Amino acid sequence: MEIDFRKGDGLIPVIVQDASTNEILMMAYMNQEAWEETVRRKKACFWSRSREKLWLKGETSGHFQEVKEMFLDCDGDTLLLKVDQIGGAACHTGFRSCFHQRYEEGAWKVSGEKIFDPKEVYGR
Amino acid sequence: MEIDFRKGDGLIPVIVQDASTNEILMMAYMNQEAWEETVRRKKACFWSRSREKLWLKGETSGHFQEVKEMFLDCDGDTLLLKVDQIGGAACHTGFRSCFHQRYEEGAWKVSGEKIFDPKEVYGR
Repeated sequence: MEIDFRKGDGLIPVIVQDASTNEILMMAYMNQEAWEETVRRKKACFWSRSREKLWLKGETSGHFQEVKEMFLDCDGDTLLLKVDQIGGAACHTGFRSCFHQRYEEGAWKVSGEKIFDPKEVYGR
Repeated sequence: MEIDFRKGDGLIPVIVQDASTNEILMMAYMNQEAWEETVRRKKACFWSRSREKLWLKGETSGHFQEVKEMFLDCDGDTLLLKVDQIGGAACHTGFRSCFHQRYEEGAWKVSGEKIFDPKEVYGR
């Protein structure tokens, strides 16, 4: 089995899970190069679709994701990383998880824990 | 905040997590109609990209996913469902999780637990 980058035009979705709590932290995309960088560095590296460049998660914030385990799904087109999240939060908004909006009575309500102030971490 | 179906040509990736163990079971896609069906039935409903039709997970196997909680990510283009997995396994291969191949020393090795025999469940 090999990773199948063809279906998604060279990109595969990557689920990132906290290795100790099993909380889902975020989802992002990898191309072949991001995958190879992730294996080499043992830190999560993605392809930024908005900036159209390789993106070492934490390169600006210092909040790297140290990769502990990696899993491939049954049809080879989705990855799951289990990571140690440096700094305790994965989301650029300062929340621990990007999935911090919960569906309640027909609307999305903010839930979850804010760990850092984005202004302090990103300086903007 | 609303779900943004535009970025992925009408489809959003959906991560499915076991509500009791927090294990990742699978990833699939929803369009607007699949989302509305999921809300209405409280069972996970996806858009099958290969069959190009609405897909109520479990419609063939009886292994439905009862939705307990739903979360939207920070930019509104990825969903996370926490579910009770009827039958104990999400993968059509009989494994509990679709992510049953673990990266070990440069290769993908089968890991995880096989719960059912696909031949018995799907009759093929």
